[in-house]
Amino acid sequence: MAHIQLPEGLPGIRGLLAFRPETARPLGELTDILLHAPNSLSPGERELIAMHVSRLNGCTYCQASHAAIAVCHLQDDNLVDSVIRDAEGAAISGKLKALLALAARVQQGGRQVRPEDIARARREGATDIEIHDTVLIAAAFCMFNRYVDGLATSTPTDPEGYRQRAGHVATHGYSALLSVLGVDGPLTER
Amino acid sequence: MAHIQLPEGLPGIRGLLAFRPETARPLGELTDILLHAPNSLSPGERELIAMHVSRLNGCTYCQASHAAIAVCHLQDDNLVDSVIRDAEGAAISGKLKALLALAARVQQGGRQVRPEDIARARREGATDIEIHDTVLIAAAFCMFNRYVDGLATSTPTDPEGYRQRAGHVATHGYSALLSVLGVDGPLTER
Repeated sequence: MAHIQLPEGLPGIRGLLAFRPETARPLGELTDILLHAPNSLSPGERELIAMHVSRLNGCTYCQASHAAIAVCHLQDDNLVDSVIRDAEGAAISGKLKALLALAARVQQGGRQVRPEDIARARREGATDIEIHDTVLIAAAFCMFNRYVDGLATSTPTDPEGYRQRAGHVATHGYSALLSVLGVDGPLTER
Repeated sequence: MAHIQLPEGLPGIRGLLAFRPETARPLGELTDILLHAPNSLSPGERELIAMHVSRLNGCTYCQASHAAIAVCHLQDDNLVDSVIRDAEGAAISGKLKALLALAARVQQGGRQVRPEDIARARREGATDIEIHDTVLIAAAFCMFNRYVDGLATSTPTDPEGYRQRAGHVATHGYSALLSVLGVDGPLTER
């Protein structure tokens, strides 16, 4: 049972987004920009970074969710499984391996990133914006994983639910998720 | 030197916000809602939670920044120093002590939060939304601290700079910070 009273029937972060629409909006927008918006890293690659960090943080809901969304984008269950088992041995680009290793450093702590982690990413062709986005995706999932598990939200065990939710997110993105949850609305004037 | 090429003269997260305006906007909005917007927890109390987590993550820039903003709100240097030295012994409410202890659990990891941490907060009068916001503030600073240190941004040593920047944020909030950095603009239609 979650530590606070959440709306029924919404697993993981979904119940939290519905509970607090004010914070749901910037969280949805941030995730959309980082994982779904056009980028030189494909959505599938960025979902693998999110999945990798969630696994390292032991967040089962987020790992399963982003693995399922990565499968939607990459259309390859075995590839996604192989990244979970052994990223360095998986059939992915050298650049993505370097970015996954960088993300794993960020997961340990900001000060754990070493110049050689950055040098490896550059050697494999990563740009400044790709390095920036990898660090911010990894940092953001250190937030999301703690948010989801710190409030003890529910983690479904049925893979089919993850697949269904993933299909919608992979197609429509994370801002659209807020509409599904009924927490979107006019943006605040600033 | 930072790991990526950032605009000159903007320390800590400021250079990162200016580098990537797309992510700066939701990050600024999230921080404004969590730390500055009206809430049953005062801005000073919420800044102390942000400061506490930043200290635990070893992020000097974020600790100094949010300590300085907390001083602006609370008008008490000694109180803020005492929370840094020993939160349990500081002259703050039992509720805030319980929320700082909860935030420290979240900093360790989402699964480190125990039912007794939540029970203590409730016993001291914390509401569901205060528990939610404390967990999300702590989780968000696990993101911000990693973002700032993971890209090796600059950490000024002069306290006067922190005081000056803090005064503006304490008065105008975090969304206004984006205008100062020139990264605000019309919000995206969704």
